[in-house]
Amino acid sequence: MREVALVGAGMTRFAKHLDRSMKDLARESIDNALRSANINASALEAAAVGNAMAGLITGQECIRGQVVLREMGIGGIPVINTENACASAATAFHIAWLYVASGMYDVVLAVGMEKLFHQDKSKSFEALGSAIDVELMQQTLEQMKTATNDGGEDAGAGKSRSMFMDFYADFARAHMREYGTTKEHFAKIAAKNHTNGSLNPHAQFQTPRTMEDILASPMIADPLTRMMCSPIGDGAAAVILTSAERAKQYTAKPVYVRASVLGSGKDRKPGEPEVTERVARKAYEMAGLGPQDIHVAEVHDASAPAELIIYEELGFCKHGEGGRLIDEGATLLGGRLPVNPSGGLLAKGHPVGATGVAQIAEIFWQLRGEAGKRQVQGAKVGLTENGGGMLRGEAAAVAVHILTV
Amino acid sequence: MREVALVGAGMTRFAKHLDRSMKDLARESIDNALRSANINASALEAAAVGNAMAGLITGQECIRGQVVLREMGIGGIPVINTENACASAATAFHIAWLYVASGMYDVVLAVGMEKLFHQDKSKSFEALGSAIDVELMQQTLEQMKTATNDGGEDAGAGKSRSMFMDFYADFARAHMREYGTTKEHFAKIAAKNHTNGSLNPHAQFQTPRTMEDILASPMIADPLTRMMCSPIGDGAAAVILTSAERAKQYTAKPVYVRASVLGSGKDRKPGEPEVTERVARKAYEMAGLGPQDIHVAEVHDASAPAELIIYEELGFCKHGEGGRLIDEGATLLGGRLPVNPSGGLLAKGHPVGATGVAQIAEIFWQLRGEAGKRQVQGAKVGLTENGGGMLRGEAAAVAVHILTV
Repeated sequence: MREVALVGAGMTRFAKHLDRSMKDLARESIDNALRSANINASALEAAAVGNAMAGLITGQECIRGQVVLREMGIGGIPVINTENACASAATAFHIAWLYVASGMYDVVLAVGMEKLFHQDKSKSFEALGSAIDVELMQQTLEQMKTATNDGGEDAGAGKSRSMFMDFYADFARAHMREYGTTKEHFAKIAAKNHTNGSLNPHAQFQTPRTMEDILASPMIADPLTRMMCSPIGDGAAAVILTSAERAKQYTAKPVYVRASVLGSGKDRKPGEPEVTERVARKAYEMAGLGPQDIHVAEVHDASAPAELIIYEELGFCKHGEGGRLIDEGATLLGGRLPVNPSGGLLAKGHPVGATGVAQIAEIFWQLRGEAGKRQVQGAKVGLTENGGGMLRGEAAAVAVHILTV
Repeated sequence: MREVALVGAGMTRFAKHLDRSMKDLARESIDNALRSANINASALEAAAVGNAMAGLITGQECIRGQVVLREMGIGGIPVINTENACASAATAFHIAWLYVASGMYDVVLAVGMEKLFHQDKSKSFEALGSAIDVELMQQTLEQMKTATNDGGEDAGAGKSRSMFMDFYADFARAHMREYGTTKEHFAKIAAKNHTNGSLNPHAQFQTPRTMEDILASPMIADPLTRMMCSPIGDGAAAVILTSAERAKQYTAKPVYVRASVLGSGKDRKPGEPEVTERVARKAYEMAGLGPQDIHVAEVHDASAPAELIIYEELGFCKHGEGGRLIDEGATLLGGRLPVNPSGGLLAKGHPVGATGVAQIAEIFWQLRGEAGKRQVQGAKVGLTENGGGMLRGEAAAVAVHILTV
């Protein structure tokens, strides 16, 4: 397979964009990505488009990417529409990478986009509920319709984010029982990410928070307070991929894709590693690198405990030592391995089908030294981890990417 | 890129399967494909899954493939869910091909699946309506809800299949005006496909029809009678891909993928070829073959006039000569270039997200000499053309594949 490089990235601010369409958001991100790569849209040879929920929210299924791209004059090229729940955008990136790595195309767009806010909130929550097996979970949808949080910072107490937060609360409690992890550990992670988000103009929430702020926010599902849960949001992110040999035509600072691995959950045998760990191992092997080589990571902190457990699954520390890692400050901006300098899903926001490409965009900027106030000094190797959906206790889809300059 | 081979194929009968779930249909097709390849499910390294409309019909979005595969014990592998309207399954096949061609994986499943019939018919038609730009066409959806055809052979006169048939009727009338094509030409094509379908145990309609039968069936949108329009249906199809070098491990009769090309519509400049023609040219170039080399083809006859126009776009004859081609009997079973020996969308049926893989499966059987009563004698080179969606007068997605033994 050919070596693949990123030469441009763009994204919208993640936010509640009630007045903007998905087309409008996607256009902004694609325009920015093209501009940053000094590439005209006519140079694009193919596109992979991630979106999780437009079908259920707007009724637009089937050709979501073409509808968005034709509106901005991009036509004729192969367009692959893909969805993998919260990992839809990383899956789109993986396909775009495959197009270039295979030698099939030289200049490929990957875009992730989502418009979750709707005047009728029940639509947003019904869509989120489709990231599980809907036949098995019909009753859960009914509960969700009556217990919603609109993601605003002023939402009232006692509202449930979605049944995903119940899953996360279960995982969190199990980790606390097994390893002595505390809610303060989770609060430290959330405080880190909210504080990082305050340095990121793309973030949905830009208010720095302390551990005390996090613990004082309303309880969603014990031990999760609202600020430990990612909000819903609207937004889009886009990147341009090309072959390593062509990359220098477009930029003096290409970012190389060293590993692109997608996996899904399964019915594990006793002792088998969890899906994120399995996918990460393959990614490290593909890159010829290990967790000790990573300088910066963007991971799927749909909840604060998820980030703590992901530290362990990615090998940033041993199993059970995620709490110690955050206590040591290792994953803070300025620590030895900053995680979610962008603010992560907790503060940057989580427009579902946009998140995976936004993570890649953040690492692109970090490795090029273009991340502004949230820059990780000297970062040369970055990792992204994007997870989505839920089936029988494992994520339905997980994608890990490793990038270097 | 590596050479890719097909080693197994399976499908359900296409039909109105009101009593069967999409999971159940997909399982049957995958089981059959694995069995025909002598491959255990545990050997699968990745899967690409095409489905167009489950989100709007069943509420299952996001992880459609995982939900189906986990149910049959297939987990852990990368699962790429893709949709491209009526070309969803060919897009899934294209991704599966890319996985093998790139060298990323050796044994990959491509599956297309659709469950369109629903107790509430308005759901089926709303879903079909999402294959266009829904913002622009909201009003058309309203029309469709009041004018439906359930695809049964006994449906009443005057019911409209969907607004796609209005598009097809427009194209048909333009062709008649420009080239002197007649409704009898379209009727001959429909009679051919219904008669072919009568030889195919997988076909939704298995009654042979004459040109007179076709012309006597109820008018849908002049010149289209109901038997010139594909029905809606339920079904699934699956194939197993591997590298050419590994293929002989599994079968003495591998079928090789010589070209896999996807494209989309665009705003054409005057004189530019239409999307199907552009995609076909690239496919011929990739295969190092031309239309004169094709022995059998499965094409997207969503309506009978569509097949006639596709003859021209694929280069089976010159522009304007599609009518002459069917008059000569060239595309009949027994003709020099049989088209849609399976019965095509008109008679085999058109469960949207299953069609593209079912076309590939048919060519697989034809090239291996396993097509029973509908066998094209001596077929060594086959082509499939699968189109989907509509944007500003061109198909939103078209995929052409060329296969050989």
